Amino acid sequence: MNDAQKKIDRRMFLRHSASVFAFNAATLALSSAKAEELRISDDPMRVPGDLPRPYGTRSPFESLTRTNGAGPGAPHGWANNASNNVNSLTPLQALHGIVTPSALHFERHHNGVPTIDPARHRLLVHGLVDRPLIFTVEELKRLPSTSRIAFLECSGNTRDGWREAQDVMVQDLYGLTSTSEWTGVKLSTLLEAVGVRREATWMLAEGSDAAGLDRSVPVTEEVLNEAMICYGQNGEALRPEQGYPLRLFLPGFEGNINVKWLRRLKLGTAPFMTRWETAKYTDLMPDGKAYQFTLVMEAKSVIIHPSGQQQIQPGFHEINGLAWSGRGKVTKVEVSLDGGRTWSTAHLQEPVLPKCHTRFRFPWHWNGQEAILQSRSVDETGYIQPTREELVKVRGTNSLYHYNAIQSWRVDRNGRIWNIYA
Amino acid sequence: MNDAQKKIDRRMFLRHSASVFAFNAATLALSSAKAEELRISDDPMRVPGDLPRPYGTRSPFESLTRTNGAGPGAPHGWANNASNNVNSLTPLQALHGIVTPSALHFERHHNGVPTIDPARHRLLVHGLVDRPLIFTVEELKRLPSTSRIAFLECSGNTRDGWREAQDVMVQDLYGLTSTSEWTGVKLSTLLEAVGVRREATWMLAEGSDAAGLDRSVPVTEEVLNEAMICYGQNGEALRPEQGYPLRLFLPGFEGNINVKWLRRLKLGTAPFMTRWETAKYTDLMPDGKAYQFTLVMEAKSVIIHPSGQQQIQPGFHEINGLAWSGRGKVTKVEVSLDGGRTWSTAHLQEPVLPKCHTRFRFPWHWNGQEAILQSRSVDETGYIQPTREELVKVRGTNSLYHYNAIQSWRVDRNGRIWNIYA
Repeated sequence: MNDAQKKIDRRMFLRHSASVFAFNAATLALSSAKAEELRISDDPMRVPGDLPRPYGTRSPFESLTRTNGAGPGAPHGWANNASNNVNSLTPLQALHGIVTPSALHFERHHNGVPTIDPARHRLLVHGLVDRPLIFTVEELKRLPSTSRIAFLECSGNTRDGWREAQDVMVQDLYGLTSTSEWTGVKLSTLLEAVGVRREATWMLAEGSDAAGLDRSVPVTEEVLNEAMICYGQNGEALRPEQGYPLRLFLPGFEGNINVKWLRRLKLGTAPFMTRWETAKYTDLMPDGKAYQFTLVMEAKSVIIHPSGQQQIQPGFHEINGLAWSGRGKVTKVEVSLDGGRTWSTAHLQEPVLPKCHTRFRFPWHWNGQEAILQSRSVDETGYIQPTREELVKVRGTNSLYHYNAIQSWRVDRNGRIWNIYA
Repeated sequence: MNDAQKKIDRRMFLRHSASVFAFNAATLALSSAKAEELRISDDPMRVPGDLPRPYGTRSPFESLTRTNGAGPGAPHGWANNASNNVNSLTPLQALHGIVTPSALHFERHHNGVPTIDPARHRLLVHGLVDRPLIFTVEELKRLPSTSRIAFLECSGNTRDGWREAQDVMVQDLYGLTSTSEWTGVKLSTLLEAVGVRREATWMLAEGSDAAGLDRSVPVTEEVLNEAMICYGQNGEALRPEQGYPLRLFLPGFEGNINVKWLRRLKLGTAPFMTRWETAKYTDLMPDGKAYQFTLVMEAKSVIIHPSGQQQIQPGFHEINGLAWSGRGKVTKVEVSLDGGRTWSTAHLQEPVLPKCHTRFRFPWHWNGQEAILQSRSVDETGYIQPTREELVKVRGTNSLYHYNAIQSWRVDRNGRIWNIYA
């Protein structure tokens, strides 16, 4: 869209927006008496405000929350085998930019959130190494560190996509992804410290939660370059739900393998075949065989404004949403208003970072007619986010994980937005 | 520093770090009984964890806070003329990366933090415009939006630099700067909506706090390109201390002009000469004249690890800190270990964003001898952060604001870090 088009779009919004009311010429000379009318009755300018607080909280008028994935509109079959084998979903529909507030980062726990004293927590690194070492959290903090703004996504995000379409909000379908600035030590620094042996090609990562969650991590060049043992999230310490005091972070890999409450790394020559990569977190194909270790979260995107269960009025709307890829940077996002027949390129908000949420924006004037909104992302490998039909042709519908098809939101003539397959 | 040097540095850290203890050969065959010893007595793996929470909080083991700038170690002359004319300081010494948690963003209030109902809040845009308009917050949210990760700094940050050096923490001296991801509407979008007149070159911005804080903003091309009316901070709504529900954001400009609780923008042809730009927030020169509207925060940097009042041990340390410039990107940060006689280039952590904090890192092996640590930043205009001597030669010491000289931390033979001028 060029500048002239932008101007037209903004003018359109102004002309059609009934709720923005213009003064007439008589009000141009706004006296201070007139300005008085603007003040609300309990005028904040007439009373001294509150004192600063040591640790701030949000306005009492803000009540946005994560929702429990087991509630109404929850993904199918999210049967909990324990009361604290649960998840909670980031309210994407009301968030801005790319950074997710830590208080609203999605959660997926298999036996609740442990309370860990960082002074007593230890990380053991052993197995195929020259010098097994035990690190305290303070010791890890003294090592060379790195920070990275990157997304995390549960492989079960949008698992409902494998089933019949339901009337849900974007939070219900897409709420298992969030972005944070992560800080910690590079895995390669630790492995150098312990003298990792050349033949070590896999690594067991074990958490200290009551589920004893452990996963096998391939020690590839990419993992050596990018994996981190994190103690920081969005500037401060990791939140308990994200693995306080230590978590593994593998940019671009499915959430589950980013082991939280990390207590042990064991180097070996083969995957360790834990229950979390045999009984769970595998992809069942149409022929009954299953893929294991499909770790990378492929390119994906979703329109967030407007989205499921919202109600819009004719006039100007900024379509915006998030796109991401576990393979690197998002290079292009296209938007369709007609269910995929025609596509236009959306604006990508800077900074566009590798393996990170990218906010895209696209101006739209809704004329009150039915529309089907879609977005599709392309990443730096050239991979194009597939249609649902393309995805199901290859993967069938036995899967629970790694659903990344193009999302369709139907806008009906009343402005109501519906989750559909188109 | 090349890769070979990096390896040497890491090895040095390992050899000298008394607190990282290696197993001997006998412990290599780590039995599960041995692993048992790693468990703390109230083992988090033996008890189900907590349930997810709708809105998370930090670990009970974390207690980091902002401190009141009026407390011990506070800047000189921060005389409060009202009990809620105060500030609070970001605890830089314990934060990671570049994003400041919203709960720990610095505050500077002239009459406390108002509590504002967003449903009743209005923004009036008037003066030299064709169509004065009043916007609700919801109406602003429907306009085309933008997000930006950028720093904010009170012009009074490090004002103690103009006085005698005191023994303080980095939080006391540098805590009036923070970084957030800000989201809102571009000022240019609003000005287009109201039909700003060609002759409008200044704009009054007025807050709805009890101080009635208002400032004159030059309507330059840079301001038109970059200024935002923000409703989002780090993904969620602005925090009350940052202007909920609306604030002006002028990337690179001194904090005070980024008017919080924004209620009014009035376009005119000259600065409005409010008390906040006449009696305060001006720079008194040696000859008794004062500069007004010195709005840009020039390039600056500070080493945070290690810093004032900390105590270090001989061995490996990662020197790291923050650098920023109100003129654009930081292009280089240099570190000196000998009080400015010799300099080495630090590593800049990606992403390096314009008008944003940039984390720099530099590996150091402290040999136990006295050292004077300094950092100096260079920005994309070629501006080099000055020494204190250079700064005082031009500005004298009458000022309260815009101190941006190179910071010196003396490390004595006991490893104690002192704030000094060198």
